[in-house]
Amino acid sequence: MSGNTFGKIFSVTTFGESHGIAIGGIIDGCPPGLALTEADLQIDLDRRKPGTSRYTTARREDDEVQILSGVFDGVTTGTSIGLLIKNKDQRSQDYSKIADRFRPGHADYTYQQKYGTRDYRGGGRSSARETAVRVAAGGVAKKYLKQEFGIEVLGYLSQLGPIKAETIDHSVTNTNPFFCPDPDKLAALDEYMRDLKKSGDSIGAKVSVQITNMPVGLGEPVFDRLDADLAHAMMGINAVKGVEVGDGFSVIEQKGSEHRDTLTPEGFASNHSGGVLGGISTGQDVIVHMALKPTSSITVPGETITTEGKTTDVITKGRHDPCVGIRAVPIAEAMAALVIMDHLLRHRAQNANVQSSTPVIPGAI
Amino acid sequence: MSGNTFGKIFSVTTFGESHGIAIGGIIDGCPPGLALTEADLQIDLDRRKPGTSRYTTARREDDEVQILSGVFDGVTTGTSIGLLIKNKDQRSQDYSKIADRFRPGHADYTYQQKYGTRDYRGGGRSSARETAVRVAAGGVAKKYLKQEFGIEVLGYLSQLGPIKAETIDHSVTNTNPFFCPDPDKLAALDEYMRDLKKSGDSIGAKVSVQITNMPVGLGEPVFDRLDADLAHAMMGINAVKGVEVGDGFSVIEQKGSEHRDTLTPEGFASNHSGGVLGGISTGQDVIVHMALKPTSSITVPGETITTEGKTTDVITKGRHDPCVGIRAVPIAEAMAALVIMDHLLRHRAQNANVQSSTPVIPGAI
Amino acid sequence: MSGNTFGKIFSVTTFGESHGIAIGGIIDGCPPGLALTEADLQIDLDRRKPGTSRYTTARREDDEVQILSGVFDGVTTGTSIGLLIKNKDQRSQDYSKIADRFRPGHADYTYQQKYGTRDYRGGGRSSARETAVRVAAGGVAKKYLKQEFGIEVLGYLSQLGPIKAETIDHSVTNTNPFFCPDPDKLAALDEYMRDLKKSGDSIGAKVSVQITNMPVGLGEPVFDRLDADLAHAMMGINAVKGVEVGDGFSVIEQKGSEHRDTLTPEGFASNHSGGVLGGISTGQDVIVHMALKPTSSITVPGETITTEGKTTDVITKGRHDPCVGIRAVPIAEAMAALVIMDHLLRHRAQNANVQSSTPVIPGAI
Amino acid sequence: MSGNTFGKIFSVTTFGESHGIAIGGIIDGCPPGLALTEADLQIDLDRRKPGTSRYTTARREDDEVQILSGVFDGVTTGTSIGLLIKNKDQRSQDYSKIADRFRPGHADYTYQQKYGTRDYRGGGRSSARETAVRVAAGGVAKKYLKQEFGIEVLGYLSQLGPIKAETIDHSVTNTNPFFCPDPDKLAALDEYMRDLKKSGDSIGAKVSVQITNMPVGLGEPVFDRLDADLAHAMMGINAVKGVEVGDGFSVIEQKGSEHRDTLTPEGFASNHSGGVLGGISTGQDVIVHMALKPTSSITVPGETITTEGKTTDVITKGRHDPCVGIRAVPIAEAMAALVIMDHLLRHRAQNANVQSSTPVIPGAI
Repeated sequence: MSGNTFGKIFSVTTFGESHGIAIGGIIDGCPPGLALTEADLQIDLDRRKPGTSRYTTARREDDEVQILSGVFDGVTTGTSIGLLIKNKDQRSQDYSKIADRFRPGHADYTYQQKYGTRDYRGGGRSSARETAVRVAAGGVAKKYLKQEFGIEVLGYLSQLGPIKAETIDHSVTNTNPFFCPDPDKLAALDEYMRDLKKSGDSIGAKVSVQITNMPVGLGEPVFDRLDADLAHAMMGINAVKGVEVGDGFSVIEQKGSEHRDTLTPEGFASNHSGGVLGGISTGQDVIVHMALKPTSSITVPGETITTEGKTTDVITKGRHDPCVGIRAVPIAEAMAALVIMDHLLRHRAQNANVQSSTPVIPGAI
Repeated sequence: MSGNTFGKIFSVTTFGESHGIAIGGIIDGCPPGLALTEADLQIDLDRRKPGTSRYTTARREDDEVQILSGVFDGVTTGTSIGLLIKNKDQRSQDYSKIADRFRPGHADYTYQQKYGTRDYRGGGRSSARETAVRVAAGGVAKKYLKQEFGIEVLGYLSQLGPIKAETIDHSVTNTNPFFCPDPDKLAALDEYMRDLKKSGDSIGAKVSVQITNMPVGLGEPVFDRLDADLAHAMMGINAVKGVEVGDGFSVIEQKGSEHRDTLTPEGFASNHSGGVLGGISTGQDVIVHMALKPTSSITVPGETITTEGKTTDVITKGRHDPCVGIRAVPIAEAMAALVIMDHLLRHRAQNANVQSSTPVIPGAI
Repeated sequence: MSGNTFGKIFSVTTFGESHGIAIGGIIDGCPPGLALTEADLQIDLDRRKPGTSRYTTARREDDEVQILSGVFDGVTTGTSIGLLIKNKDQRSQDYSKIADRFRPGHADYTYQQKYGTRDYRGGGRSSARETAVRVAAGGVAKKYLKQEFGIEVLGYLSQLGPIKAETIDHSVTNTNPFFCPDPDKLAALDEYMRDLKKSGDSIGAKVSVQITNMPVGLGEPVFDRLDADLAHAMMGINAVKGVEVGDGFSVIEQKGSEHRDTLTPEGFASNHSGGVLGGISTGQDVIVHMALKPTSSITVPGETITTEGKTTDVITKGRHDPCVGIRAVPIAEAMAALVIMDHLLRHRAQNANVQSSTPVIPGAI
Repeated sequence: MSGNTFGKIFSVTTFGESHGIAIGGIIDGCPPGLALTEADLQIDLDRRKPGTSRYTTARREDDEVQILSGVFDGVTTGTSIGLLIKNKDQRSQDYSKIADRFRPGHADYTYQQKYGTRDYRGGGRSSARETAVRVAAGGVAKKYLKQEFGIEVLGYLSQLGPIKAETIDHSVTNTNPFFCPDPDKLAALDEYMRDLKKSGDSIGAKVSVQITNMPVGLGEPVFDRLDADLAHAMMGINAVKGVEVGDGFSVIEQKGSEHRDTLTPEGFASNHSGGVLGGISTGQDVIVHMALKPTSSITVPGETITTEGKTTDVITKGRHDPCVGIRAVPIAEAMAALVIMDHLLRHRAQNANVQSSTPVIPGAI
């Protein structure tokens, strides 16, 4: 209820502050019988982890996840899965100067006003560190979706500042530190980021997720549409300011005759909808895009106010990402996987015995 | 769980198909003591109602809402509020040809695959008619927010096809059939829509909502952020394909030094964030934008498949909006009001006795 | 959240006051493809209906349920089902004297204190009239459970004041106005109730529910155990003050060697557990008992206070049941059916692909 | 959804198996500003802890709780509170013989059938060890209720086998290993338990909870009544088979003139209702009783079947409580506190601005 749980049937509840003892979470509703080890989850945690390249923060976080329950003899038992990631590299001294002031662009001010108190160390609960737990939980969903249904959740960086990926080659994405699927843009990204780091500033980004091998029929009418829940999931990622499904904002200037995807005996002729009609998956690839703001933790000096309301300066000296969008790629994948997983189980609850589940269009399931 | 409920503390659950006996809903969690009559809700229902101008569908729906419970002696009692809107103008014959085929761009195909059956009359549950109940429920929230906190939820059409509102004058919005806040664009809109109707095609639109007099501190960290819940609400409106908060997709090319809103002793110096930091309201106006696709019900002929998978033609002869975005303005307001209302009660549950609720920045609450 | 919704996947949300325009509800999560008509639900509504015998209230309520949505061409479509029961026989004058005082044993005082206002006509929302909607919703669950799994939910009056049913013959239950399964007790019940009516007093009762053909494995560990959810459901019925599963309170004096049900290759040798172990169904019959207090609406004069806190008298002149426990039988069945239905869908969501679902013990599923 | 979360606004989600690495949980929705240390929670954990007397199991579990998040500078911050209790004394060898058979009276059979697999070590998730987390979470609720509202949650053993507490002296309860509030029954309990241990058998018990200084108005009408949620909470405790509120099962033979509690200008004249009318607290003490079955882990030999369905013997050699009811006292208190806490926040969400919150009856709040 206080917002630390995501999902209704397959759910994850998280806890933890950036500089506390540990972060962690509980997955509830995982089907039994899924082979699962910590190594399965570590893959994506390592992709999200800071300090893996010179383009992301130099902070070292080991992000080693421990599975505390819900797995026995190598398989999930159907009971709740406890996840724990200890905080190691805390260096609280880096943040001592923020106790008495509100960093602009951060949640310092809003947490203080909401609760009358806040854990100011490293942003506390509002730190992106919390997303490590989402990545671990999303890893469980990804494994189940892939293994049981062949569904794959493929994220990538589609734009960084002015540089746009023009070809989407998923085999390229994980071979470079930018999660960029376009091999021709790597040199430009490298140069852009080097200059940006020198300037002490940060930049926004666009991240996209493509979900392949989608079943038809996932998503609930009216409020909990598949696209609405994806929007909720993505806008809930730190720094995200916009979400699109399919053609997104370009539909504003489209005509109906142009936008509607024709159905043919061979399948849909196009995918303007992004794989969702009436909130329910069409069986086509689901396509989601999101816009991430530039981090506000920059070494460019700025002004703000103290907790007493007086003007003061703000200089961030900590180690921060010049583009938080980059590391958001595995987070976006995890959140998308959690949404699909939850809707798969929700669909199954209500519709197990529907006879005509074979799609009319061959190959669409 | 099957998606027909919105909100956690102040919630609305809806039912009803386009051509059934009635549509309706239940509001749960409404504070007691609020003066409420059907006339309060009818205002927005009439704004949403089809047939009010030549630019929207000529279908006549009286959309008269009845309050069946939860109000006694003119005030809410705290118990659940039953809402009923009877369906009158059903003309099922208009839709008889769609029983055997899937209209492209509609939910016919996905409902059929999900459930193995569907109410094909007028789109059934997937019809935008269902949003009338949301508008009625949103009216209760709007009244409470305005009366108790002075909060106003102001929607408007910010773009229709290529025509953009350049000045936002809320006093203009409700004086024209487009909900356009820019008086200088009315003639252009009129001409554009006349041409569009002649062509038999439809067009997309952008709708925006500005929420004024926001309290500081609404929104729950991590998953149920205020902006994430707004994204869920807006993407759950029929035809919406994209949602932005504050600067939205333009943050992709922004620098951190440019985006972060400086705090001064007089308040925030700018509002790039759209009134939300870390998922919690800053006390500034909340700004949300959404993109609505052009309706797929057009008289331009198209192709599709029958429920048996054979190619067939599709011509929509019913009475439809050439731009569904226009009538979405009161729906977007209603959904935004439901989100704010729910978060207000959620905040109050946990934080009633916090001492330091006076904001540091004067005038910010 | 404000308590008007029951169930998580198969849920019912209700509204309505005793003397308002109508009562009703929304069922969400019903599987598609279930043949359903109003007549299916009317059977149990008629069993619950007042005025059917001289032992229950003489008030006439027609309790005619209307299905407003979610059913098309005679089968459920998977979308939300709207239910409406109009209030007819309101006779508000019977209750005019209760506006200024709190009837002892009723919810007048607590509603007034909770909400600062109340609909005092006939108890408003706290009236047992609201349970008619539960009975209708339970009817949908009962039909599905019976048809798809053979599960039957069989309620009966097990005790009324000092008179206990000693033989449980389900074929007798619905042949008499007491829902008593013991044919040898009908004469005694008849005499007892005649004397009670003369005295103007009321009496408590015990109602039991036996659920047959239960699948193994329903119920979720830890909090949402099958028995815990049954307790929630039953204690939520007006006038219920106690709930037992299986041996109930007699376990206090049992030894472990006596209580534990031995498993044999032919099945369990006994059913002290009431069909639930560790919160999960064993495949045996589920047995639940509940105690209902005597109604407080009696013609025996009493004392109470006015809404101003002054002493006053209270005489109930309305038409009331001398034993509310009798009509609670179909309500208890309905609530039990809602619990089983919800747990069936919850189980299916998580466990669809478990291989070893065949029980080790033959005949146990 | 899969049952590992309790509460809607103030909620606790738990994980962990008896013989896994650790058990733990997450509290969400805790008001900020509450002074909280691990020592606050340890008090009740130590009361629940095995090995504290010769009448409970000799297993040593240190049950040391660690607060991993949500507390900063000694006070709660309003964010989620992570709790961890490491498992220490595991001695898996004690349980090796149960892998291949289903212990009667335990959840071995039902877990296996539900999930197709189970963690058989010490009962896994079905072990009462999981309740340690509930006790820790309940401790947070107890502290808040006591400090902010003076509410106290007082549990005690009201009956053990044939021995009933006749006087309820709360100052006696925590001075003896039985949590018995009647000083005159201690010798009899001591003797009874000594004989029982010798016989190798176990015995049932009745545990009661009295909640003092209750505010008026807690509880939601219809389904989530205060008493219904208490029934859910209590029946969800391992081994509980029956729950009563107020007069409980004795209402069956009561007359209405006898049961209804008269309101006088000085307050209620009696408390047959157990402090709840219409599901809402009256301001009187809330009284709940529950029946706990005798543990099935006894050294008296028994029969059962193997996982292959063959007859086999069962002898429990582990260290077990001869009366699990005794240690259930702090668990029952914790669950009651969680219910009251949740309803307090739920009430506050909806009713913050009700004017007439002063009760008519002096001293009733």
